[in-house]
Amino acid sequence: MNLDTGNLLYRGKAKDVYQTNQPQQVLVKFRDDITAGDGEKKEIMSLKGYYNSLISAKLFRLLEDAGIKTQYIDLPEPGYMISHKLDMIPLEVITRNIAAGSLLRRFPFQDGQTFNPPIIQMDYKNDEYHDPMLNDDIILALDLASSEDLETIRKITLKINEVLKSFLESRGLLFPDFKIEFGRDIDGNIVLGDEISPDTCRFWDIETCDILDKDLFRKGESGVIEAYQKVANIILDDEDKKKWNLDF
Amino acid sequence: MNLDTGNLLYRGKAKDVYQTNQPQQVLVKFRDDITAGDGEKKEIMSLKGYYNSLISAKLFRLLEDAGIKTQYIDLPEPGYMISHKLDMIPLEVITRNIAAGSLLRRFPFQDGQTFNPPIIQMDYKNDEYHDPMLNDDIILALDLASSEDLETIRKITLKINEVLKSFLESRGLLFPDFKIEFGRDIDGNIVLGDEISPDTCRFWDIETCDILDKDLFRKGESGVIEAYQKVANIILDDEDKKKWNLDF
Ligand SMILES: Nc1ncnc2c1ncn2[C@@H]1O[C@H](COP(=O)(O)OP(=O)(O)OP(=O)(O)O)[C@@H](O)[C@H]1O
Ligand SMILES: Nc1ncnc2c1ncn2[C@@H]1O[C@H](COP(=O)(O)OP(=O)(O)OP(=O)(O)O)[C@@H](O)[C@H]1O
Ligand SMILES: [Mg+2]
Ligand SMILES: [Mg+2]
Repeated sequence: MNLDTGNLLYRGKAKDVYQTNQPQQVLVKFRDDITAGDGEKKEIMSLKGYYNSLISAKLFRLLEDAGIKTQYIDLPEPGYMISHKLDMIPLEVITRNIAAGSLLRRFPFQDGQTFNPPIIQMDYKNDEYHDPMLNDDIILALDLASSEDLETIRKITLKINEVLKSFLESRGLLFPDFKIEFGRDIDGNIVLGDEISPDTCRFWDIETCDILDKDLFRKGESGVIEAYQKVANIILDDEDKKKWNLDF
Repeated sequence: MNLDTGNLLYRGKAKDVYQTNQPQQVLVKFRDDITAGDGEKKEIMSLKGYYNSLISAKLFRLLEDAGIKTQYIDLPEPGYMISHKLDMIPLEVITRNIAAGSLLRRFPFQDGQTFNPPIIQMDYKNDEYHDPMLNDDIILALDLASSEDLETIRKITLKINEVLKSFLESRGLLFPDFKIEFGRDIDGNIVLGDEISPDTCRFWDIETCDILDKDLFRKGESGVIEAYQKVANIILDDEDKKKWNLDF
């Protein structure tokens, strides 16, 4: 199966998006490139795209089962996701359940402080301006989304958080924070796109508090791909593992 | 009249706040210190406190006349304002009618682009963290204000903007943006505090587009105090000018 034949629509820092022969479908290729620090730190990490695609596919299906519209159509093979083609909204929608990362550098929160309700933060996906944090008035003035869009995005995001948080906790993972992106489908629906993976989420082992996400790479620690593999092992169902002959 | 005798409650970068013999009143002394760039650039500019106090007093009275609660009680002499003692809310509430300053560095707006409705931005008044921009969720998580407080603050701020903008335009000044601070009085009312002056506002000459505010100091240009004096001359009523023997 040659999955790469369509027109390359977009090459991002970690994924390629190809047109398929269905006008409203794209093929998202999860690459092994891993980047951090606004793209300054770069590496290739064998199997990263493979695990991220499997983890994303599982979490998208879980959200679909909970009634949330996602881009997910199919994972024909690990690394490749057939997805609804979306007109992406250039917002990085970040949800925080536990204080970590840049939040601690920018504001006087306690390390490990929990947020209930969670904090939702919206950053402008704009490399030239280094993804600045926005507020609603600035989003409206930049014409990135309408008030109604923002309300919809917040509502869906809180639901996504609930679904993922309880699933992950049931599997022994804490879910401090995550970043998602939305787009509009052909009918104008706001749909969850992009990915949900250790590249875009924090995952901590509930027992040991071990970090199991891209923070290992940011900090220059070893065992990055082993952590991604562990998350895949924890999250995937036996069905998935059998289907892809995964032997963790 | 010795106005400095009370207990010094607070010494800020540009003003001193003294207790008066009335428990719920403070004396705000407008100093001649002028600072910029997070306090890095510092100078003393003779008469700055004098003009700022006169301008602030006039604008506070204007707002009071429009039904907005302010700290203003009296200006016993230029440089000294008797004010309601407030429990300050550590928010810098910034209103933007025209894109200028840090907004242009942080987001892709056009220089001089107008905002209608205006953008309201709230920064955390916190020197250690360099006054970071907030969003509502972060304000709530930091427990700086409640949702109801934020709604009240936004409503009052928009009204303040309307009143000041039309007054200033009637006097030939554009009002691109301004920063205000609120506090709570003894009865729990949210009251406008601090100052409204060329230190905390942008004022542009409608005809010439000349800058008439602290941006001149930020840019290292000459004629700073002359600009402040010009704003005072434009804003003050004949009554004020006569009272203080002002001969501009
Ligand atoms: N379903 C979808 N349809 C169309 N585009 C999508 C879809 N899902 C994600 N995208 C876009 O595809 C790109 C994914 O690439 P990737 O994540 O590697 O880029 P990035 O590193 O986030 O940043 P940049 O886009 O600035 O390079 C993103 O621009 C994302 O918004
Ligand atoms: N009516 C009021 N009652 C009590 N405090 C006030 C009142 N109005 C203003 N303040 C406070 O007085 C101080 C004014 O001082 P100034 O503006 O010089 O300080 P600053 O430069 O803003 O910064 P910092 O307070 O961090 O030094 C501020 O902390 C302000 O919040
Ligand atoms: Mg991305
Ligand atoms: Mg101040």
